[in-house]
Order: sequence, then C-alpha cells, then structure tokens
Amino acid sequence: MIKAGIVGTTGYAGAELFRLLLSHPEVEVVWAGSKSYEGQKFSDIYRNFYALSEENLKADDLGEMAKKCDVVFTATPQGYLSKNISGDMLKAAKFIDLSADFRIRDLEVYENWYQLTHGAPELIEEAVYGLTELYREEIRGTRLLANPGCYTTCSILTLYPLCKEGILDPKTIIIDAKSGTSGAGRGAKTPNLYCEVNENVKAYGVGTHRHTPEIEQELSIACDEPLVLNFTPHLIPMNRGILVTAYAGTKTEIFPSPEEIKSIYDKYYGEEYFIRVLPYGVCPETRWVEGSNFVDIGFVADERTERLILMGALDNLVKGAAGQAVQNMNLMFGLEETMGLTGVPLFP
Amino acid sequence: MIKAGIVGTTGYAGAELFRLLLSHPEVEVVWAGSKSYEGQKFSDIYRNFYALSEENLKADDLGEMAKKCDVVFTATPQGYLSKNISGDMLKAAKFIDLSADFRIRDLEVYENWYQLTHGAPELIEEAVYGLTELYREEIRGTRLLANPGCYTTCSILTLYPLCKEGILDPKTIIIDAKSGTSGAGRGAKTPNLYCEVNENVKAYGVGTHRHTPEIEQELSIACDEPLVLNFTPHLIPMNRGILVTAYAGTKTEIFPSPEEIKSIYDKYYGEEYFIRVLPYGVCPETRWVEGSNFVDIGFVADERTERLILMGALDNLVKGAAGQAVQNMNLMFGLEETMGLTGVPLFP
Amino acid sequence: MIKAGIVGTTGYAGAELFRLLLSHPEVEVVWAGSKSYEGQKFSDIYRNFYALSEENLKADDLGEMAKKCDVVFTATPQGYLSKNISGDMLKAAKFIDLSADFRIRDLEVYENWYQLTHGAPELIEEAVYGLTELYREEIRGTRLLANPGCYTTCSILTLYPLCKEGILDPKTIIIDAKSGTSGAGRGAKTPNLYCEVNENVKAYGVGTHRHTPEIEQELSIACDEPLVLNFTPHLIPMNRGILVTAYAGTKTEIFPSPEEIKSIYDKYYGEEYFIRVLPYGVCPETRWVEGSNFVDIGFVADERTERLILMGALDNLVKGAAGQAVQNMNLMFGLEETMGLTGVPLFP
Amino acid sequence: MIKAGIVGTTGYAGAELFRLLLSHPEVEVVWAGSKSYEGQKFSDIYRNFYALSEENLKADDLGEMAKKCDVVFTATPQGYLSKNISGDMLKAAKFIDLSADFRIRDLEVYENWYQLTHGAPELIEEAVYGLTELYREEIRGTRLLANPGCYTTCSILTLYPLCKEGILDPKTIIIDAKSGTSGAGRGAKTPNLYCEVNENVKAYGVGTHRHTPEIEQELSIACDEPLVLNFTPHLIPMNRGILVTAYAGTKTEIFPSPEEIKSIYDKYYGEEYFIRVLPYGVCPETRWVEGSNFVDIGFVADERTERLILMGALDNLVKGAAGQAVQNMNLMFGLEETMGLTGVPLFP
Repeated sequence: MIKAGIVGTTGYAGAELFRLLLSHPEVEVVWAGSKSYEGQKFSDIYRNFYALSEENLKADDLGEMAKKCDVVFTATPQGYLSKNISGDMLKAAKFIDLSADFRIRDLEVYENWYQLTHGAPELIEEAVYGLTELYREEIRGTRLLANPGCYTTCSILTLYPLCKEGILDPKTIIIDAKSGTSGAGRGAKTPNLYCEVNENVKAYGVGTHRHTPEIEQELSIACDEPLVLNFTPHLIPMNRGILVTAYAGTKTEIFPSPEEIKSIYDKYYGEEYFIRVLPYGVCPETRWVEGSNFVDIGFVADERTERLILMGALDNLVKGAAGQAVQNMNLMFGLEETMGLTGVPLFP
Repeated sequence: MIKAGIVGTTGYAGAELFRLLLSHPEVEVVWAGSKSYEGQKFSDIYRNFYALSEENLKADDLGEMAKKCDVVFTATPQGYLSKNISGDMLKAAKFIDLSADFRIRDLEVYENWYQLTHGAPELIEEAVYGLTELYREEIRGTRLLANPGCYTTCSILTLYPLCKEGILDPKTIIIDAKSGTSGAGRGAKTPNLYCEVNENVKAYGVGTHRHTPEIEQELSIACDEPLVLNFTPHLIPMNRGILVTAYAGTKTEIFPSPEEIKSIYDKYYGEEYFIRVLPYGVCPETRWVEGSNFVDIGFVADERTERLILMGALDNLVKGAAGQAVQNMNLMFGLEETMGLTGVPLFP
Repeated sequence: MIKAGIVGTTGYAGAELFRLLLSHPEVEVVWAGSKSYEGQKFSDIYRNFYALSEENLKADDLGEMAKKCDVVFTATPQGYLSKNISGDMLKAAKFIDLSADFRIRDLEVYENWYQLTHGAPELIEEAVYGLTELYREEIRGTRLLANPGCYTTCSILTLYPLCKEGILDPKTIIIDAKSGTSGAGRGAKTPNLYCEVNENVKAYGVGTHRHTPEIEQELSIACDEPLVLNFTPHLIPMNRGILVTAYAGTKTEIFPSPEEIKSIYDKYYGEEYFIRVLPYGVCPETRWVEGSNFVDIGFVADERTERLILMGALDNLVKGAAGQAVQNMNLMFGLEETMGLTGVPLFP
Repeated sequence: MIKAGIVGTTGYAGAELFRLLLSHPEVEVVWAGSKSYEGQKFSDIYRNFYALSEENLKADDLGEMAKKCDVVFTATPQGYLSKNISGDMLKAAKFIDLSADFRIRDLEVYENWYQLTHGAPELIEEAVYGLTELYREEIRGTRLLANPGCYTTCSILTLYPLCKEGILDPKTIIIDAKSGTSGAGRGAKTPNLYCEVNENVKAYGVGTHRHTPEIEQELSIACDEPLVLNFTPHLIPMNRGILVTAYAGTKTEIFPSPEEIKSIYDKYYGEEYFIRVLPYGVCPETRWVEGSNFVDIGFVADERTERLILMGALDNLVKGAAGQAVQNMNLMFGLEETMGLTGVPLFP
C-alpha cells in the first residue's frame, strides 16, 4: 500500500482527494493535515466521512510527512510548497502540488501574476506539469509534480489538438469559462455566501485571472509560437463543474469541416479513457461529468463567421484538482492510470 | 456474474440502478429496458454514461427478461409488475420491484390508497418487504422482493428502534419530511420545471401521500399495535436527498434521557454498516449522504415539551431506491451485503 | 415627508428596509447607518441601488439619529437597542426595533433564551409588540415598537385564530418551519457558504431556537393558558421565504370540518389585506409571496389522525422583517397601512 | 386609464407583463387571454396574484381585443401575430408584439432563421423595432411595435455605442451569453425540469440561435456595414437574468483607454434612466437588476490582447421582455417613460 499524506485536507480539494484516496485500492492515507483544524476529527468537519474515517487531523508538518509518507499532496494556497519544500524532503517522498507554485516555467511570469516571491526557483525545472494526457511519460518519472489548475485543465485539453495541428490562429483565441462555486474554496467570505451566489451570474478577474499565463504557456508550446489570449471566468450558482466555451479563427486556407476537426480530436484523444469527444453538434454539459474524472469535449464549426467554437466540461474538484492528482499518482507509482477513478458520473 | 435486467431504465431510479450496477464487481446488466426510448442508445439520453455503456435500450419485455436474466429490477409506475408478472417468470428469475405493488400486506389498503386493482394478489404473501435492516433473513430467501419507498425507508428506520422498544406513544407520531426533486421523477410536468421548483418550498399530498400506509404498516408491527400517523412531504429545491423530522411523545413514566435513546439506537444499529447514528445533538443533513447508501440518524430529547424529535437523512435515489435494491440483491445472491455500495458520499 | 433613519443598513433586513422606503411615497431616508461600512457608498455594497442612492453610509449614532429623524429603525443584533436607547431619544423620535430586545414581556425568559442582560428593562412594558394584525390599535399609539421575528410572524399568524377560538389543544402544538438562507444574515460564516447550503436541507437549533418563547408568549395569550410547544427550524437552499407546517390536535368534542376551520380563518383575516386565506386544500408556497408583504395560509383537517395541519408562507425579509416594519410605521404615523407595500409578488 | 389586453398571459413573459401592468397607475388590464387556460381563474395558475386579480382568463380573440382595448400585447410564439393581425385591428388598437414577427427587416432572413412563412410581410416596414433607447422617437408614433428579444436587448445595448462610434472592428465581435431558465418558457419539457437544469451549465443553439440575426441587423446599422458575429447562449441554473460577455477588437490606431471607452458609454447612456454604466472595472451581475428594468453595463480594456471585454446584465423578463414592453407603451401613449418601472431591484 502506498502511504499518502495530505496537506490542507479540509479545503474542498483536499477533502475530495481524501474521498478518492479512501476508495483507492492501493493507497492508505496515513497523515491528514490541517492548519486550521489540527487535532479535530476530520469527520466532525466533513460528516460525509462519518464512520468511514476516525482519525484526528494532524499538523501540516511537511518534514515529518515526507518521512512517513510515500507521497505528499499539498492542497494549499500558492506559495506554501515552494517556501517549505527542501531537497531532503524530495529525496524522502514524492510530492504532488495542487497549487500553482511549480506550474509556471518562467519565474518572472509566476512572480508577476501571483505577486509572490518564489521560494524554490531551483526546483522549477525539475518539476513536471501534470496535465496527464500531455505529459504522461515525464510524469511517470518525476518526484515533484505540479498538478494543473481547474480552468487550465479544461481550457488546454479543449484547445490543445487544434493548436498542435496548426489549425487555430493563435492570435484569435478567446476562452469564456463558467465555474461552480466550490472553485472559490471554503474560506468564509461574504461574496461566497449562499445568498450572494444564488440567482446570480457574474464575470470576475477579467483580464487578470491567474490561470491565464498557465493556459498561455501550454498553448504556446502547442502552437509553437508565443501567444496571448483572453480568459474570462464566470461564477455559476452550482457546486461543481467547469464549462469552457472557446472561440478561435483558423490558419487554414479553407475553413475546416466538422469531420476534419473531429478526426483531429480523435487522433489525440481516441485512446484516452478520461477524455470523451462527443459526436458533432453535441454540447458538453457539466452535469454529465459530475463526481468523475472525465472531460467531455464538443465543438461547432461555424462557417458563417469562419470561427470554431470549442467546448469542454469537467468537474473542477476531480479532473480539475483531486482526480487528476490521483491519476498522476497512479502513473508515478506504476499503477494502472485509471485506478480508483472509474465510477460513472453522478446524475442528477 | 449475475445477469441483471432493468425495466424502466430511463427514469431517475432506473438510471441510478444502472449506475450502481455498472460499478458492481459481480453484476452484468444484460437487458436495459425502456418503453419510451426503446431502440435508442441509453448514453444518448443519460450522457453521463457516454463511452461507458454502448448498448441500445430494449423493450420492457418482462417474459424475455425473466428468461435471460438472473434478476429483474422493475423501476416502473405502480401497477406494472403486479399486472405483468407470472408464476413462470418467478420460477425463471428473481424480481426486485421498486414500485409499491408488493409492499402493502393488506390488499384493501393498497387498492384504496393507490386507486388501482392489484394484478396479482396471490403473490402478496410471498413477497418480502425489502427494508434490509429489518428483514435481512427473509430477504436472503425470497424471489420476489418489494423494495421500500424513499420516504418510507427514511421514516421507518428513524422511528423503528424506539417503537420496537416501546418508548414512543403510537398515537402521537408526526412525520414531517423534505425531499429533493428527483423524487418527483423525470416526467415532463409543469410543476417540476426548474422555475417552478427553484426558490420555493411547499407541502404536497398532505394527509393523502401513498407512502403513509407503508410507514403505518411497519411501525404498527414494531409498536405491536395498530397506529395511524401524520405524514407530510415537502418539495425542496435540490436534486437529491430526503430529511425526515419526526415528533413523538413517550409511553415511559419518566421522560427518557438522551443516553437512553442513544443506547437504543446503538442496540439496533450499532452493527449496521449503512446506518450511522450521530452523536447526541448532531442533526443529520442530506448533503452528508449524497450519492451513498447511508442513512444518518440524530435526535433531540426535548424535556420542555416531553417530546422526542427524531431525524433521519438519506439519498432518495440510493438508500431510498436503487442502492437499497442492490443491497437486497446482494443478500438474495449470497454476496457481501455492502458490495458495490461503499463509496464515500459526495460533498460538496 | 417622514424622515427615517436605519441602524444596520447593510444587513439583509436593513437593505430590504431601505429598498421599501425608497419607493415609499411619504418617507425620506435621511440617515443610513452602518458600523462595518461607515463612510462607504451604500450602492457600492448593494449595487442594486446603483444610481438610485448616492449617499455614503453614516455611523450608527443613535442619539444623533433620534434628533434628525422622525423614526429610527434598528436592524441590529439582539442587545443593541436595549443597551443604547434612552428616554430622551424616545421623546425625540419613534423607534422600530427589528431585533428581539423588546418582544419578550418576561425579562427572565428573554435573558434565559438570549443569554443577554437586558439593557433597558424599564421600557419593556411600554413597548408594543408589532404583529400588526393582532395589535393594530396599540401600534398606532406607540413610540417603541418591537417588530416580530420572521419565524414568529409566520407561526403566530398561522395558529392564532384557532387558538383564540379554543379549537386547538395547546398541549399538542408542533411547528416545523423551513426558511430560506437570507434569514441567516450576511455575516461571513462557513456554514452559510453557497456550497454548504446548496443541495442540502437540515434542522438546526432544535429545541433551543430563540423564536420559541416569542411564539409561546403570543399563543399562550391567544389560548388563554400557558403553553409550551415544539418549534423546529430548517435551512432551505433558497434566498427568501419561510414555510410553517404546524400540527395540532383539537379540544372540540367533534373533529372540526374544513368549513368550520375556514370560517374561523375568514372571521379573523377576511378583511386583512396582507393575509390571504387560501381555498381549502391549497397549500401555501413561498414562491407566491416572494418580495411581498403577504402571508398565505392554508390547512388540511385530517380526520384519520384527528389532527389539523396548518400551513403559512411569507417572505422572511418583508412580512418577516422590513415589510412589517413599514406596515407598522404606516400605522404609527397615521398613514394608509398598505402604503408602499402593494406590489404583486415576484414570480418566477 | 389605458385599456390593455394580453394574449398569452400564462407564459412567464405574459404573467410578468400582467404583474407590471397591475401596479401601473394609468393602465387597466381588461382582457387577459390564454389559449391553454381559457375560462380558468388566472390566480389559480399564478397564485402570486391571489386576491389581487379575480378575473377568469378569456380566449385569445385578437379581433375582439382590438375592439375592446387601447393596446394589445402579444406574448405568443413566433408566427402568431403575423398570421392573425389585420389592417382593421391596427386601426382599432395599438399592438406591442413580444414575439419576433416584426423584428427582422429582411423577410428572407426571418423566414430562414425561423423556418416560418411570414403572415403579414406588408406590415414589416411599418413596424418599429422597440429597443427604446435607440428608437425612442419612432416608438412614440407607431401603432405596431416589435418588442426586442431578451438576449438581443442585452447584446445590442452593450455593444451599440462602441459600434456607432466606429471603435469596434465589426469582423471580430463574439457574444457569449448566459441566461436564467425562465427564458426557456413554461412549457413542460424534460430538458427544463428542475433536476436537468440544476447543478448544470451548458451552451445550446450554438451558431443557430434565432436572436443572432436580430443582433446582427442592429449592430450592422450601428457599424454602418454588414456584419456577422458569434452568438452563443448558455443556460444557467437560476430563474431570471441574462449576462452578456462580449469580445471585440478595435479599428482604432491606438488601443483605446478605459477613460475613452467610458466617455463613449456616458455620451450615449449618461441620460438614460434604465441604463447604468458602472465604474471602470466593476463587472455587472444579474442579481443587481433582478425584478427591474435596468441594464447594467461594464467593461475591461485588455491591453495585453488588444481586445475589449464588454459586459451587460438585465432581467430577461423585465427589460428583456415585459418591462421594455411597458416602457414602450408609456412612450406610445405619451406617458412618462419610466412610469410603473421605478422599483429598486430585488436582492437577495
């Protein structure tokens, strides 16, 4: 059994990770850490675990965890892992970081967008970006994995094949994203109160959301040229789910047919268990992936405007956070990639 | 592998059953039937099954299903199974009926409350009422199982131990229940539209809801005297979940202490995997059981009014329908009772 | 024009009061106070007021407000008004208190349930309980009005006529109430976050909720004998609305017919603009009163159990708080009681 | 008093119109028509009107209504008015059509997008497009008013000033819109059931939604050149509200500053009561306009991508339908434009 530790277990992503690991046949959670709730019983805070987990939460003691665990997951605010990790810890355990600390290759970009000083710039190069379907081989061998953001996973996977194949015009990409409220975390803030979120939709962080440079980094690589794009997140009155609606013009001489687009998606994702390319004309919906690690992708080729509308849906806490972390852990420990992640999405 | 068939796969309970069976290690669904969607691909209707089930829906042909299946689940309107079942079918397969046809022991009570003529009164005696925790032994041996209603399961399990131990005064029982909207089914009716249900709470079927005689039947047995009670269901703007808040006076000379009540619950449910008796003062909430087969029970002993307030919460589609059906199937086929039902509830 | 001041304008009740007063033809809000947001523009916090109110929030300076205003509304936590009011202020202005400070006649009951020392016990006798339909004449003449609680208004109005007429057995009253989340206030607390409230229903404060003694006080008067009762509030995933489902046995020799019950309601409420007694068998729903000062009342006389099920619905922020405060203000200033409160409820 | 008739009173837009007209000081609804519910009491269907409207619904008899009414509102499916209107009726009464029949100037465009044969092409030229802020003068004089669509009103008002001033590059316009579910109407369809809409977000009608040509028509006029654009509507789990997030590049040599953009909005909308241009950086949210006739507009000028992100929010049933219809009626009858429409938006 793999011994796992979680830093930040009582956030939504941390708790989802615990949920997935508790059903995982090859993992035992030996250290559930929490800064705010240390010493309390986890199942007193998340009562869905009542009678299923009887442990008290421990401190977020990264050094001890590295010694006692085979893998440490950090579901923490940005800056935590880079400021607390050491070379010794990395020798003792593998690390999977759900924060942004090691996602951005360019130190300056990270420090600008996050307004933080990076605590361990020397480790950036070693870290592997954990978008599983794109970096599967690198992931198998790493000991420091930067698990991607929720918006990022959805955006990149939706756009990647058409960037890689040179179909999209990199100067024209616009991503309009919609997220459930669990993405805003469990902190007690007025804007996240029920009555403030319910019966409302709003854009936020327009032009400034921190997932932007992460998307740009990966799509620049795919397009093989630097690009900037618009990314606009919206808050939706629902618990889970992200829907990305992306718009782009094409570089091709003739506007591509739906069949061409579909065949490109199938080329990249046809063998992927967790990416489901929908039949042409079917739009992905967040309800069909809730509670699962799937990403559903659909598209429309609009001849009138000569633009492609590309859509992706995932569960922000699973494929957008904890599920992808488990998927990556499976690879890092030589297990079947889908282990513990094969349940049917929950509907309604 | 057990070969299973489902009649009525495209209702919410039928689809939930399919979801659970697809992850069940000892079951193969060989016949997914549907009257309304025969010939269509199931995953075109429930896209959460996309890429997970590729089969087309078949007819609801009970006779053929009995021949081809080891067990047939009927997730159908009341009256269907009793009008279509035969002795030959019962010899060929085991039946688990999610409708009310074989739940009520007294034919007249059934026909009065349901305003239906029963199609197979001769089978009522043979049928076993599938409230697993109460009829475990009978369930193991039956070939015709009447799976309980959603409100019923929650109400009976919440009240049963205190009835059985002679604590509650049977003349004083009041059950105020709250249900998510999936309990109303997937039929296209104006009152179940999003805008009619959202931002609203209402009682319905006050004094006339059909789960009343089922609750009365089982609690009369537990109290060892005939009883009538108030049962008032309410519709809540959420997908899943039932919360029961029950009120009752006591027959005891001295009003019982919380410890006494707790010890009675523990006596009956201490060993039950799916029933979680909460610490005194903790109220059950539907979010903590969502997607799972658990029933959470809590209570308050109110000395001021000398009444007990007993509360239970479950997921109406799981323990209130499909999950309990699988739990019963497990027993009927000699499997581990919890098989395929051990996931942690999904929150948020 | 009546000059009005509001203490606590930025809570949900305070803001609703501001909304109603802004449309009131005879009122001008000259002082909108706020402890937390003093100096900020109100419409920067409640952007529904953008371009409609350009004023900055002032301090909660009760003494100054009494001098500058004809009426001061306090939408504050319990204990505020009793600790800050003085005889001089009461000579200068009329006070309408939306907190519980002057609702409870019995000082000991107040201090026990609220765990507070009352700051002005000498004023309790003078204060008038502002359940308009019950105390209309007293309200006209008062200068210190105790505006009732939201659950309280709904519960009392639903039960009052049958108590007053001696129909209900006072020992049997059980009130099961369901409230939207705005009743929990705008404070940033984890349990009120969107993801904690959405897709959930729970009871809370079982046996201990502070509206209990207020309901008991008024129904004891109506029944003309002391009574205790069960009051169980539940939190519902919606913004506004309270539904009360009350259960009671009768004192009458013969169980009353629906016509008898209906005629009693009509006797008390037939002329009341804001109380709508529904046709027999129609259950009140919160959506039909949203945004309005109406209370809808319905009932079922259940012969089987010889109990009455009495139901009431209102908007907790309007008739349950700000609307009733305006209704009372209208009376206290000799205006038409319905002034500023006659809009059709907003649906959907 | 203006005598008003409504065809299609029992749809969401028709009922909202009735609600607004009932509070309007200069209007009396003398004929509330309904095909499906003729002869029933309106307040039995919309119980928010209980005790406020006691009338039975009449037939949708357009001829009789024209005789008895000064103004007839048609809140009907597309095709109804064009097939039933006559010159005589138009002489007898003014018509305000909430459907699309007379919105599209180009007959062929209408017939292509709506797949209908137009019933009265000879009246298209006479009809005035009722986007009040753009066609105020024409509206005053017309007897046949084509009230704009909900998405359309929000989209056009958000983009119009920057089109008119030649800032936007017409080839680059992308509109990503999000709507509450009341926009889908009150028809009993499975996709609009509570459990299908709740906890979900999806795009629909991608590239084919019928509001597209209406937006293109008006923005082409504003840009003074023909244009096509992307319009993608999304369904949001809430009752009311539309949010438009629009993206466009510019034609200007230098990318415009926020101040320049703001001053253009102020030039066009500074005097408009119902259009509230928010301070720079503040994003509109649907909750701030709920229940009102306001449109809130905000924007971000993204220098990085040299694109403008323009956002608008309105209540789809008010400014997007019934409210704008009343605003137009006010003009057509020489009343104050804001009459009956000045309430503060309802929050929460």
